[in-house]
Amino acid sequence: MLSEALEHARSNRQTYLNQLFDFLRIPSISTLAEHVPDMRRAAEWLATDMRRVGMKSVEILPTDGHPVVYGEWLDAGSEAPTVLVYGHYDVQPVDPLDLWDSPPFEPEVRDGKLYARGASDDKGQLFTHVKAVESILASGGKLPINVKMFFEGEEEIGSQHLTPFVLANTDRLAADSTVISDGQVISADQPSITYGLRGMAYMEIKVRGPKRDLHSGSYGGSIHNPAQVVGEIIASLHDKNGHILIPGFYDKVRSISDEERELLNQVPDGLENWQKETGLKEPWGEPDFSLIERVSSRPTCEVNGIWGGFQGKGMKTIIPAEAGAKISMRLVADQDPFEIADLFTEHVKRVASDSVEVEVSRLSTDWPAFTPIDSQEMQAASRAYEAVWGVAPVFTRTGGTIPIVAVLQKELNAPTAFIGFGLDDNIHAPNENFVVDHFYKGIETIIHYYYDLAR
Amino acid sequence: MLSEALEHARSNRQTYLNQLFDFLRIPSISTLAEHVPDMRRAAEWLATDMRRVGMKSVEILPTDGHPVVYGEWLDAGSEAPTVLVYGHYDVQPVDPLDLWDSPPFEPEVRDGKLYARGASDDKGQLFTHVKAVESILASGGKLPINVKMFFEGEEEIGSQHLTPFVLANTDRLAADSTVISDGQVISADQPSITYGLRGMAYMEIKVRGPKRDLHSGSYGGSIHNPAQVVGEIIASLHDKNGHILIPGFYDKVRSISDEERELLNQVPDGLENWQKETGLKEPWGEPDFSLIERVSSRPTCEVNGIWGGFQGKGMKTIIPAEAGAKISMRLVADQDPFEIADLFTEHVKRVASDSVEVEVSRLSTDWPAFTPIDSQEMQAASRAYEAVWGVAPVFTRTGGTIPIVAVLQKELNAPTAFIGFGLDDNIHAPNENFVVDHFYKGIETIIHYYYDLAR
Repeated sequence: MLSEALEHARSNRQTYLNQLFDFLRIPSISTLAEHVPDMRRAAEWLATDMRRVGMKSVEILPTDGHPVVYGEWLDAGSEAPTVLVYGHYDVQPVDPLDLWDSPPFEPEVRDGKLYARGASDDKGQLFTHVKAVESILASGGKLPINVKMFFEGEEEIGSQHLTPFVLANTDRLAADSTVISDGQVISADQPSITYGLRGMAYMEIKVRGPKRDLHSGSYGGSIHNPAQVVGEIIASLHDKNGHILIPGFYDKVRSISDEERELLNQVPDGLENWQKETGLKEPWGEPDFSLIERVSSRPTCEVNGIWGGFQGKGMKTIIPAEAGAKISMRLVADQDPFEIADLFTEHVKRVASDSVEVEVSRLSTDWPAFTPIDSQEMQAASRAYEAVWGVAPVFTRTGGTIPIVAVLQKELNAPTAFIGFGLDDNIHAPNENFVVDHFYKGIETIIHYYYDLAR
Repeated sequence: MLSEALEHARSNRQTYLNQLFDFLRIPSISTLAEHVPDMRRAAEWLATDMRRVGMKSVEILPTDGHPVVYGEWLDAGSEAPTVLVYGHYDVQPVDPLDLWDSPPFEPEVRDGKLYARGASDDKGQLFTHVKAVESILASGGKLPINVKMFFEGEEEIGSQHLTPFVLANTDRLAADSTVISDGQVISADQPSITYGLRGMAYMEIKVRGPKRDLHSGSYGGSIHNPAQVVGEIIASLHDKNGHILIPGFYDKVRSISDEERELLNQVPDGLENWQKETGLKEPWGEPDFSLIERVSSRPTCEVNGIWGGFQGKGMKTIIPAEAGAKISMRLVADQDPFEIADLFTEHVKRVASDSVEVEVSRLSTDWPAFTPIDSQEMQAASRAYEAVWGVAPVFTRTGGTIPIVAVLQKELNAPTAFIGFGLDDNIHAPNENFVVDHFYKGIETIIHYYYDLAR
C-alpha cells in the first residue's frame, strides 16, 4: 500500500541512487555515431532494470533510429486507469569537456547535487517512475493502476522516428493518460505543474521580383522591391501592441479563465530573470496580458530570420531579385497548426504586391498540448506534490513546443501530466546536475500520483 | 573657322582613328596593381598628344592614386567662355578574356565598330575633344573658346582621390561650364542629352534588441523582435503607390515643368527594354509619373539589403539579437543629401520601437546634378547634335549617380553638359566597342559645340 511503498522508497534511497549512477555511466549520446553501441547498452540496461523491478513484456523495439524501450504492468484490472509514462534515455553531447568539474560519465555528488550528463535530462527523472514501481511492487505486490512505460532514444536529436513509431503502435500505447517527467519545478520550495505547451506553425516566405539583381539607380522607383515587400509583409503581422493581425488567427484560442489566470499569475513573474536573460528593461507585447501570460499562454508570431540583397560591408546599389523571411507562430489550445498555416498564407498573399511572386512554405506544424487544470490528472499531480513537498504546486504553461506530446495527446486521445523534478540543472551544458533530494522526492511524488489516480 | 575645322576633321578621320588605336593599345586598368606602369604610360601618351595638338601647360599632376592629365588653351580672351572638359583614361578589367572575339588591347574594326577595352568608356569619347581641338587649331589657328582638359585615371575604381584634387585645384579648374563625353545616345538615329543625374544618400540601419539570440518559444511575445522592427521601418517608408513617406522628403524637389515633362516623354519610353531587363510585365511606382520619369526624374528610396537571424536551410526558432537594412535614396535637384540623411534618420528613430536600440549610419552622400534645358550649354549642345546628326536630340535624365559631376558643379559653380556618343557598347563587359561613325560624328559635334558656345 501507499505507506509501505513510501517507506520502501525511503529505506532504499542509496540503492536507487547507486543504480542511477550505473545508468548515468553509459554515455548514451544519441547524436554521435560512435556512441551507437552505448545507446544499445543504455536501452538494455534500462530494460533489464525494468524487468527486475517487475515490469512485464519488456522489449527493446526498433525504430528507424535508436530503439524504444517498452514495458507494461497491466494487472490492476480493467476498472483501473492505465497510465503511459514517456521519457528518454539519450543525452546531449558533453563538449566543451574542459568546463566540467567532474567527468560527465563519472557521476559524483557534491553539495547535495548529482553531477553527470543525463542526471536531470532525462535519465534521473524517468528513473523515478521505475523506482516508484519497484517501491510499490517490492513492498506490497500490486500497482494501484496499470502502467505502460515507453522510453525513446532520440529526444535530443528531434524525435524524428517517434511519430511513425507511435502511429504504428497506438494499440500497444493506448492509455487513459500519459505522464512525462522531463521538466522543472520553480524552486526547491515551490513545485509547479505545466499544463500547457505551445504548438507551432513554422513558415518560410520567398519574394521574387526582377529576374536578377538590378541597378537601383537605373530601376529604382519602377519596381516593387522584394526586400521592401518582405518588410511590408512583416509589418502587416502585428499592431503596435504586438496583437497579431492575421484574420482568424485568434478564432480558436481557448480563452484563459479567470481562475486559470489567477493560478497562472501566482507563478513568480520571472521579470528579474527575463531582464537578466534578455538584457532589456521592459517587456514588450500585448498590454492586456502579464509577462508570464505573453510567453506561455498567448499565441505569438515571431520573425526568426530575414534576408535579401547586399549584406556585406559598405555599399552596393541594387534592387535584390529575391528576399525572404522565416516566421514561426507559437500556438495555444485549440488552434490548429494546419489551419493557422493556411490563414497565414492567405494573409501574406493578400498583403503582398501583385507585382512580385510570393511563395509561402510550411516548414513545420505542431499541435499545442493542453491538459485542463481541473482534470483528474492535474488534480492528482497537485495532491501528490503537496503531499511530498509540503506545499501546493502552482500551475504554469510553457512557451516552448514538445512535438511528441501533442502527437501522443492526439493519437491516443489522452491528457498529459507533466510531473517534473528538475531545477536550473545546466541541462544541455557542462556540469549538468540533479538535486539528489529531488530524485528522492520525485520517486515519492510518483508513488503518490499512481495511488491518487486509482481513487 | 567652323567649316575649315569640320573639313579638317573629315579629311583626317583615318589618322585620328589610328591615333585612338595607339591610345587603346595601352592596358590602363586602374584596379590592377600590375598595370600601374601602363597607367603612367597612358597618361604620358595622352599628355604628349595634347601637347602635339596645341594644348598648353600640359602636365601630369599627382593625386594619392593614379595621376590626372591636365592641359589648357586660354588664348580666346577673357570675353570668351571657358569650358572644362572632364574624362577618364583608365579602363575596366577585361576578364573573362575568353569571351572576347578579339584581344581587348588589340583594337580591331568589324562591321563599323571599333572593338577594344576603353573604346567607348572613355578613351574614345574623351579623345573626340582632343581631336576637335586639333581640327580647329590645325585648320585655323585659334579656338573660339578657352578650353581646359582634365582627365583622371580612377573613374573605374570610384574616383576616391578626385574630390580632394578638385578642392585643391579650384583655381586651375575654374570654368564657366564643364563638359563630359562619357555617355550614350539613344540610337544612331536619335541623339540625346542628359541634363540631370540623381544624387544619393546611402543609409544603414542596425536594430539591436536582446543581448543575444533568444529562444522564440521561451521569449516570443515579450520582446519587440529586431527583425520585425526592421520590417516596420521598411514598411513605413512608402505608401502603396511608392510615394515616399519620410516627412519633408519632397520639400526641395524641383518640380518637373510641363515643358520639361513634354521633352522628357519624347524619349522612347523604354518599356520594352525595361521588360527585357527586369523579366517583369508592369512597372510599379508613382502612378502620376511615367516610367521614364520614375527612373530618372523622381527621387527614390530602395532597400538594397536586409539581414537578421537565421537564414539557413530549415528552421531555427530564435528571436534575433540584431537585424539590419541598407537603404539608399536617389535624390534629384534641389534635394540636399545631408538634409535627406537627417530626415531619414529622424523618421526611422520616430517609427522604431522604444524597446530596441536603433543605429542609423550615413554611408554615402552625393549631390544631384542638374543643368537646366534652357541653359546656354544645353541649347548649344542641342544645336551641335542637330547640325551633325541631322535630328534634334531629346533631353533625358539619368537615374544613376556620378559623384564627381556634382562635386564639379558645386565647387566650380558651373553647369555641366553631357555630350555622349556611346550606344549599347558592352562597356564593363567583353567585346566593348565604339561605333566608328560615332567617333567621327563626336569630333564634329564637339567642334560645333565649341563654336556655338562662343556665339
